[in-house]
Amino acid sequence: MPVYLDHAATTPMLPTARAAYVDALGVVGNPSSIHSQGQQAKRMLEEAREAIAVSLGAEPVEVILTSGGTESINLGVKGLFWKRAPRRVVLVPGGEHHATVDAVEWLASHEGAEVVTMPVDALGRLQPSVLSSALQRYGDDVALVSLLWANNEVGTINDVAALVAVARASGVPVHVDAVAAYGYLPIAFDAVGAAALSVSAHKIGGPVGVGALVLARAWEVEPLIHGGSQQRVRSGTQDVAGALAFAAAATSAAADLTHLASSGGDLTQRAASGRESPLVAASGFVAELAALRDRLVAGIRSAVPEAVLRGDPSPAGRLPGNAHLTFPGCDGDSLLFLLDLAGFSVSTGSACQAGVPEISHVLLAMGIPSDEARGALRFTLGHGTTAEEVDALVAALPAAYASARRAGHSTRTPAPTAFA
Amino acid sequence: MPVYLDHAATTPMLPTARAAYVDALGVVGNPSSIHSQGQQAKRMLEEAREAIAVSLGAEPVEVILTSGGTESINLGVKGLFWKRAPRRVVLVPGGEHHATVDAVEWLASHEGAEVVTMPVDALGRLQPSVLSSALQRYGDDVALVSLLWANNEVGTINDVAALVAVARASGVPVHVDAVAAYGYLPIAFDAVGAAALSVSAHKIGGPVGVGALVLARAWEVEPLIHGGSQQRVRSGTQDVAGALAFAAAATSAAADLTHLASSGGDLTQRAASGRESPLVAASGFVAELAALRDRLVAGIRSAVPEAVLRGDPSPAGRLPGNAHLTFPGCDGDSLLFLLDLAGFSVSTGSACQAGVPEISHVLLAMGIPSDEARGALRFTLGHGTTAEEVDALVAALPAAYASARRAGHSTRTPAPTAFA
Repeated sequence: MPVYLDHAATTPMLPTARAAYVDALGVVGNPSSIHSQGQQAKRMLEEAREAIAVSLGAEPVEVILTSGGTESINLGVKGLFWKRAPRRVVLVPGGEHHATVDAVEWLASHEGAEVVTMPVDALGRLQPSVLSSALQRYGDDVALVSLLWANNEVGTINDVAALVAVARASGVPVHVDAVAAYGYLPIAFDAVGAAALSVSAHKIGGPVGVGALVLARAWEVEPLIHGGSQQRVRSGTQDVAGALAFAAAATSAAADLTHLASSGGDLTQRAASGRESPLVAASGFVAELAALRDRLVAGIRSAVPEAVLRGDPSPAGRLPGNAHLTFPGCDGDSLLFLLDLAGFSVSTGSACQAGVPEISHVLLAMGIPSDEARGALRFTLGHGTTAEEVDALVAALPAAYASARRAGHSTRTPAPTAFA
Repeated sequence: MPVYLDHAATTPMLPTARAAYVDALGVVGNPSSIHSQGQQAKRMLEEAREAIAVSLGAEPVEVILTSGGTESINLGVKGLFWKRAPRRVVLVPGGEHHATVDAVEWLASHEGAEVVTMPVDALGRLQPSVLSSALQRYGDDVALVSLLWANNEVGTINDVAALVAVARASGVPVHVDAVAAYGYLPIAFDAVGAAALSVSAHKIGGPVGVGALVLARAWEVEPLIHGGSQQRVRSGTQDVAGALAFAAAATSAAADLTHLASSGGDLTQRAASGRESPLVAASGFVAELAALRDRLVAGIRSAVPEAVLRGDPSPAGRLPGNAHLTFPGCDGDSLLFLLDLAGFSVSTGSACQAGVPEISHVLLAMGIPSDEARGALRFTLGHGTTAEEVDALVAALPAAYASARRAGHSTRTPAPTAFA
C-alpha cells in the first residue's frame, strides 16, 4: 500500500461511517413515502440531519443535503445570485476553488453577472479592508460575496468571522466554502453569521456523493434542481444511508474538535490575529495532525532547504493537515510522479482539475511567479497518518527532488485568469 | 416486517450492489488524482461506467453520472433548453414526473420558456400524432421535447421509439425520463435515438444518490453544476463506490432483461401495438414480476369488484411490476393508512411529492374525474415480492376498503394544473 498523503482530495470512509451506511441499508423505504417504512426512513434521515447540524453549529432546518461540496457551492452561489436579482455583482477573492470560480464564470457568461475578483495577500488571505472597499465601490449592486473558510490547496485560513461581519454591515449575504475547513477547524455557523455555507462528507470520512449547504433562515436561494421538493430548495430522493454515514463522520469530527472549541473560542480569529495556536495546546486528532504536519514541514525544510512553504507559515494560520511547498527548478508533476513510484500519494494542488496540468490559480492569485508556482506540491495528512509515514516521505524526498530537478520544467502553462 | 409493495418509490439495494459498494471502499483515492491510487480509482470508475452504458445500450462516453434521477432530468431538460436558445418552446405531455414538471415550470417562470403541455390519452400515452401536431405548430421555436418512457404512477409505457422518430424528423432533441422504465423494460439508447435519457440507480437495486444522464454525442447540454469538470458537463468528485454499486445493479437488471431483448426486438413497440406480451413469454425476474402483477390485479378485481385498473390494461402496455387502481367512494390516503396498519406498504402514486396530499396530476391528465382520482392506490412489485405477499394483500384489501369507504372522501384538493 502506498503512503496516502492526499487526504484533502478524499479521505477514506471512517469505520463508523461505513457501519452506519451498511446498517441503514437494512431499512427499506423512501423517506417521502407516507407508510410506516417510509416514516421510519424519514426519522433516520432527520436524526442524521440533526447530527450534521450539530457539527456545524446550525439548526437542522438550515441543513440542506446535497450530492457534495460542488453542488452545495453551486446552489449557494447561483441560488443567492438569482434570488438577489436585479443585483449583478458577485465579489470573490482570487484563488477560490474551481466550483466557485466556474460557477461565477457561468453566471457572468450566461446570467449577466459582473464578477469582481478581490486580491488576496501573499499568504492567500482576503483582508477585511479589501472586502470593505469592494463593497463600498459596488454598493447596492452587490448580489453576494463568496469566499473560502480555508484554502484547499495552500491551507490558509481566512478570518471568516471578520469578513462576514463586514459584509453583514452592508446587508450583503456571504456564501462560505467550508469544504476544506470542515472537520479540521471548529465551524459555528450560527456565530459566524454567513448566509450559506458549503461542506462535503467525503472530506471528513463520510461517503463521496453527499454534502450539505447550510442556509440561514433569513436567506433564500433559488433551487438548482427542481422536482418533488423533498427539501425546500433541493429535490431528489433523499439518501438516508448516505446521510447517516455523513452524520457518523460529522459526529466523529465534532468530537475531535470539542476540545478546541471549548479551549478558548474562535480559532479563526486567534489564527488570524497571530496568537498562540490553540491546535498545539489541544489534544486529540486535530492536535496530533498539526504536530505531524509540523514534523513534516520541519523535515522537508531540513532535507530540501530550497523548498519554500506556501500559505500561512504560522501553524495556527493554516489547516492542521496541510503542508504546501514549492520546489525550485522542477515541476510539481515530475516530483509527484517520482514520489508515486517511491510509494507516496501526493498532489500538486486541487484534485478537482480533472488531471489537467495547469499552474495553480491559487498560487498565481497569491502573487507567486509562474516559474516558482510550477514546482508546487501539496501534502495533506488525515486519519491514520503516522510519524513513520511522514519520516519516510522526508527520507524519500531528496532523491526525488534531485531527479525532478534534472528533468527541469515542462511546458505547463499558467492557468487562465478568469477575471482580469 | 411489513409487506413492501412500494418498489417504485425505492427498492432495496441488491446484495451484489451492497458488496460492490463495500468492496470499493477498500480502495482509497479520488479518481481525479493523478497518483497511482487515484488512477486505480479512476479505472474502477470507468469500469462501472462501461457496465452502466451496456445496460442502457449506450457508449461509456455518453454516460454522465449524477446524484440521481431528479438531477439527471434537470440537467437534461434545462441543459438542452439553454443550449437550444433562442428557441423557447418546451413540449411535454401531461402527467410527467414532478422533476420534469417543476423543472419546466422554472424554465417558464425564470428563463423565458414557453411550456406547452400535450394531451395524453385515457391510458396516459402520448400519441405520436399529437407530438407531430405540436411540432408543426411551434416549428423552429421548439427547444426540446421531454417525455416519460413509462409513467411512474400508472405504469403506462409510451411508444418511445415512434415518438423520438417524430421529433427527430423535425430536428428536435428529445429527453426521455426512463427512471421508472429502467430495469423493467429493455432500454436501447442507441436504437431509440433520443438526445438524452435519465435513469436512477436506487430504482433498480443500486444506491440512492446515484443516477445517470445518457447524452448522445450529437447533442450538448449546458451544465447545471460547475466546477472541476470531472465529467464534461457535470462537476463534483466522482463517487466510485456508488458507481460500482450502480453498475452491479445495472448488470443484474441487464441480465434479467437479456431474454426479453433477444426474444424479439422492441418491447415498447410491441406493447404499443397491442401485440402479444413478450413479458409473458420471457423467463426470469421480469416475467415473474409480470405474472405476480397479473395475479395481484386479478385478485383485487375479484376481491373488490368496484376497483378500476388505471393505465394500460394490456399486460404488455404497462410496467411489469405496476398495478394502479382507483377505489370508488374512498380516499387513497385512507386506504393507504389502513393497509399500513394491516402491514402493507403501498402508495397513492408518486413518492416524490413530499407527503403533500394532492390528487394525482397524472390521473387528471388522463381525464379521470377528481372524484374517482381521489381513490388511487399504486402497488409496485420488485425483487423479493412473493405470491404469498400478493395473496395476503388481496385478502386484506376488502376490509380496508370497507373501512375507507365508511370514512368517505376527505377535502383533498386537485393538484394545480401547472400549464392550462
